[in-house]
Amino acid sequence: MDSAAVMKDITDRAKKAAVVLNVMSSDEKNRALLAMAEALDAARSAIKEANAVDLAGAEEKGKSGAYLDRLKLDDKRIDGMRAMLREVAALDDPVGDVLEKRERPNGLIIEKVRTPIGVMGIIYESRPNVTADCVSLCLKSGNAVILRGGSDAINSNKAIYEALKKGAASEGLARGAFILIEDTSRELVEAMLKAAGDIDLIMPRGGESLIREVVEKSTVPVIKHYKGICHVYVDAGADLDMAEAICYNAKVQRPGVCNAMETMLVHESVAEKFLPRVAGALRGAGVRMKGCPATRRILGIDIEEAADEDYATEWLDLVLNIRVVASLEEAIGHIARFGSRHSDAIVTGDPEAAAEFTKKVDSAAVYVNASTRFTDGREFGKGAEIGISTDKLHARGPMGLEELCTYKYVVRGSGQIRE
Amino acid sequence: MDSAAVMKDITDRAKKAAVVLNVMSSDEKNRALLAMAEALDAARSAIKEANAVDLAGAEEKGKSGAYLDRLKLDDKRIDGMRAMLREVAALDDPVGDVLEKRERPNGLIIEKVRTPIGVMGIIYESRPNVTADCVSLCLKSGNAVILRGGSDAINSNKAIYEALKKGAASEGLARGAFILIEDTSRELVEAMLKAAGDIDLIMPRGGESLIREVVEKSTVPVIKHYKGICHVYVDAGADLDMAEAICYNAKVQRPGVCNAMETMLVHESVAEKFLPRVAGALRGAGVRMKGCPATRRILGIDIEEAADEDYATEWLDLVLNIRVVASLEEAIGHIARFGSRHSDAIVTGDPEAAAEFTKKVDSAAVYVNASTRFTDGREFGKGAEIGISTDKLHARGPMGLEELCTYKYVVRGSGQIRE
Repeated sequence: MDSAAVMKDITDRAKKAAVVLNVMSSDEKNRALLAMAEALDAARSAIKEANAVDLAGAEEKGKSGAYLDRLKLDDKRIDGMRAMLREVAALDDPVGDVLEKRERPNGLIIEKVRTPIGVMGIIYESRPNVTADCVSLCLKSGNAVILRGGSDAINSNKAIYEALKKGAASEGLARGAFILIEDTSRELVEAMLKAAGDIDLIMPRGGESLIREVVEKSTVPVIKHYKGICHVYVDAGADLDMAEAICYNAKVQRPGVCNAMETMLVHESVAEKFLPRVAGALRGAGVRMKGCPATRRILGIDIEEAADEDYATEWLDLVLNIRVVASLEEAIGHIARFGSRHSDAIVTGDPEAAAEFTKKVDSAAVYVNASTRFTDGREFGKGAEIGISTDKLHARGPMGLEELCTYKYVVRGSGQIRE
Repeated sequence: MDSAAVMKDITDRAKKAAVVLNVMSSDEKNRALLAMAEALDAARSAIKEANAVDLAGAEEKGKSGAYLDRLKLDDKRIDGMRAMLREVAALDDPVGDVLEKRERPNGLIIEKVRTPIGVMGIIYESRPNVTADCVSLCLKSGNAVILRGGSDAINSNKAIYEALKKGAASEGLARGAFILIEDTSRELVEAMLKAAGDIDLIMPRGGESLIREVVEKSTVPVIKHYKGICHVYVDAGADLDMAEAICYNAKVQRPGVCNAMETMLVHESVAEKFLPRVAGALRGAGVRMKGCPATRRILGIDIEEAADEDYATEWLDLVLNIRVVASLEEAIGHIARFGSRHSDAIVTGDPEAAAEFTKKVDSAAVYVNASTRFTDGREFGKGAEIGISTDKLHARGPMGLEELCTYKYVVRGSGQIRE
């Protein structure tokens, strides 16, 4: 069979399962999720053995320590997957919620009802825990899911997949509700990207080059998140204690994630006072700073000069760009030019400045007097998230169960016809 | 300049205007819309002259009568465009609506706020009234729009565009808020489809081949509507008077539109009684019927046999497929196989059958005891619509002003940092 035929067979199975998932009760879905958590426990040693094979292979290829760390599955990570399955089982079922209801003058009652999307596709790199996380969220939201993980994690993924299938089967879950693509060839992933009409949505998870390739080639709609170049702007009238705490938290608390600050913008009227104190704290945490000429004048020229390409870089590390701006408008302009529409914050005591910033900054999450680090499904009260969208269509910001759903209109009448 | 550079110049202008549109008040937008309606009136003779040139050109190319009719602009159509502009001015402004608000345990207040999407692209065929309709809806929803209409309507489109620009300028609307692409070359439309990052959403309007080409080539997200293959299923216990009225209305009232019925499904237990009476009424209206073997047994073999390809055809005409089914399940299966996820109805007296149908039929609008013809922005209480989406992402069913918007999260704190 050629790749298109193999993919057609996979999507046919997923579509059949989606029909069943669409009408499953919350209880049925939850029982399957809990059984899958138990099955992961039972398969613990098989999963670790398979993972050891993957790790040895990746090491042989000379992969970096960070790469190997993401690939590694220890008891803690297996327990993390189990906790996710149980957490998702405990979340409210979004399917069937009535989002709007209106009665028309002719007596028609129109309800906008939340429904599953159908068949999801996830393309991800060699992080095997993504396998279980995505399965749990798609199942609870009533969607079938086709998973295509990185080839370096294939043994780990297969072991997780077998365990999840065993758990799911014990509760009678439809076969095809989740399908791991075991053939990690390039041809098959390209067939997946051309499966418009059979797959409803593809979510790539991984580095920017993977995501760009998916967007370029896919005829299936894609929701994505390229990167997080997040800013904190310290306004003229900011409380400088608050500003320091927020900037320190946004940069240092977990620098390797997408909602960490990459560039700090400081109004010129507070720069002389604010920069030395915040720089002291940041330096203490090991942050390497790059600054505009004004920043370097204030902090000293041992700080590297920041170029445009620095402002456009997602460091994901203890590196920070600093720029002094003459106005709120200039800060907003910098964010429009270099930001990634992810999360941006203003620290200010001025309600008008806050209003202007929140209105004009076109990002998924815009903060006033809080750290950008809060952009996260759990912190937003959504429970677990499948990712964060920096797109504008369908879902923006943290994507939880609700964002894995669409809606349909259910219209009830008593014989109405159109005049 | 090559096409990509020309397009970049166009999208740069649109993006600049989008920044201004985003913060415009409802009053400012409404004043511009009303001035544009007046300007169309003033340009009436220029528009008709330009349209005469287009009509002569299309006639010379041997275009069909229906094509020429869609292209034609008379006083009534010009008044229709003006009415649309005024109607849209009177609609509520969706921008800034707070869709959700929650306070988190840490005191953060998270609001989900409706915002414009940004820069829209509309690709359409030779129906010049679409130009004014799309401009009005995009402007009111705070979006800039780039319009690429069919080459046969270019003179009409230019005349409308000039009039709209004049009206908009009299109210100081940002230049670039709406831009007609005057060069209708193939290269430029292809550059438009590759403008991901500069255009946020493309909506193709026209025949299926145009739409498929856009989906195939576009790296910009697309929302579309291929076709409407709508069904009415007459269930075992249906009120046959109601069923007849609904089926007649769904087929006959306006057969050339996407929410008209193309296939009627009838439960075998009522077929003997129902088919002869509904066929009489339909025949009286000039409907050509194609039937399954059971239908032909009941109605007589002068009715043509319906093949699978008939069930998959959007007739847009006084033609109807009829199929007798043994069960509700079979009706749902037929709709899943041949339908286009647009609008499908059940006529039934049985609440359980209604519940099963509305749950299992995966269409934008699912009706119980009402005509499919109600799938329309105005009938749904949304006011004017830009189209109907048969996609599942972002917007499904009629797309009004709200569906031309996205949202962002605005998070207000008092110095919160993440632990």
